[in-house]
Amino acid sequence: MKPRSSLLVPIVLPIFALASVGCQSQPAPDDGEAEPPGRGEGESPLFTTDGKLNRPQGWEAWVMVGASIGLSYAEPGAPTPVSDGPGMFHNVYMQPWAYSHFLETGEFAEETMFVLAFYGASQEADPAQSGFFEGELAPVMEVHLKQRDLHESGWGFYGFSGDAAAADMIVGTAPCYSCHSERTALDNVFVQFYPVLRHMLPDAEGD
Amino acid sequence: MKPRSSLLVPIVLPIFALASVGCQSQPAPDDGEAEPPGRGEGESPLFTTDGKLNRPQGWEAWVMVGASIGLSYAEPGAPTPVSDGPGMFHNVYMQPWAYSHFLETGEFAEETMFVLAFYGASQEADPAQSGFFEGELAPVMEVHLKQRDLHESGWGFYGFSGDAAAADMIVGTAPCYSCHSERTALDNVFVQFYPVLRHMLPDAEGD
Repeated sequence: MKPRSSLLVPIVLPIFALASVGCQSQPAPDDGEAEPPGRGEGESPLFTTDGKLNRPQGWEAWVMVGASIGLSYAEPGAPTPVSDGPGMFHNVYMQPWAYSHFLETGEFAEETMFVLAFYGASQEADPAQSGFFEGELAPVMEVHLKQRDLHESGWGFYGFSGDAAAADMIVGTAPCYSCHSERTALDNVFVQFYPVLRHMLPDAEGD
Repeated sequence: MKPRSSLLVPIVLPIFALASVGCQSQPAPDDGEAEPPGRGEGESPLFTTDGKLNRPQGWEAWVMVGASIGLSYAEPGAPTPVSDGPGMFHNVYMQPWAYSHFLETGEFAEETMFVLAFYGASQEADPAQSGFFEGELAPVMEVHLKQRDLHESGWGFYGFSGDAAAADMIVGTAPCYSCHSERTALDNVFVQFYPVLRHMLPDAEGD
């Protein structure tokens, strides 16, 4: 039995060492897991014991990479506008550490998450005279997570309905996967719609 | 001479100690000043020797508190849309430390900055079928800075045109001051338009 124990030690120790480093720089999340160095609390994907992704927390303070209104290549799960108005605002956020990684390397790191949040287009506040601002946050939300074991694209989609605390991955045959695979500017991400990322595309004109 | 040296030491040392702490966690800004603890690089207002505000850097990664499109209570300096389309996207950002302070206290801290950035409303990218996403960043930009010595409102406005590296404060008789003083929901800030701040208003309905 002795030789087998010795083999296990080098594998197990680095995991605890990594967790320990995280604890020194910031408080551990509620579930006791610590973030890797350079990441704020809640900036890593967390899963339930049965494999669901926990709804990200604190994404409002992540980097908002692009807003849109009424885009009609609507993601599955996007709320349908209740009128023939301008549609909803779609805001897309990514973790600050993942944003920095992308600007440094031009590639999306493992565990990058994009959060797609929906806001109603509102006019109901003085002194707005015309145009639309972001009203109520819709209860549905989507996450696009880069993790190589999830799907052949290297990414998984998750849709959070209502106040669901966790979500199963959307099945890999859903149209979101093929659309993102075929029509995005870079690695399954609609970089062409995101002004703070777009300048990293190979054919960018320095916008 | 000995007694005088002893008096100076406790005053001078803490200043260097503070600068040293800042340097350990992040590089000092180009002008050699270190950020206070809890602030990232570029998250404090910096002035030229003749009192102009330097154009903020890195605001794209600050907290985006609210987007709008075509709002017609247009800020002075806002670019005029070139067509009768939906108008421009207005994105408003604040420093992460100032956002945290507001969520904790319900008040805006001294040195809070709001950056108002303008993006064209674009449809020119596959696979967008309808609606608008954020296109080119306009070269003009505005900043609303909370600093009590600037104006009786406690805030100053700055408009950055073209690629200006610094801007004089907009004169205190300009309509932006009176409009923000009279029509904002809280302390000269249009909190009513910002979904991630709005829930802090005293009459918020938990949106």
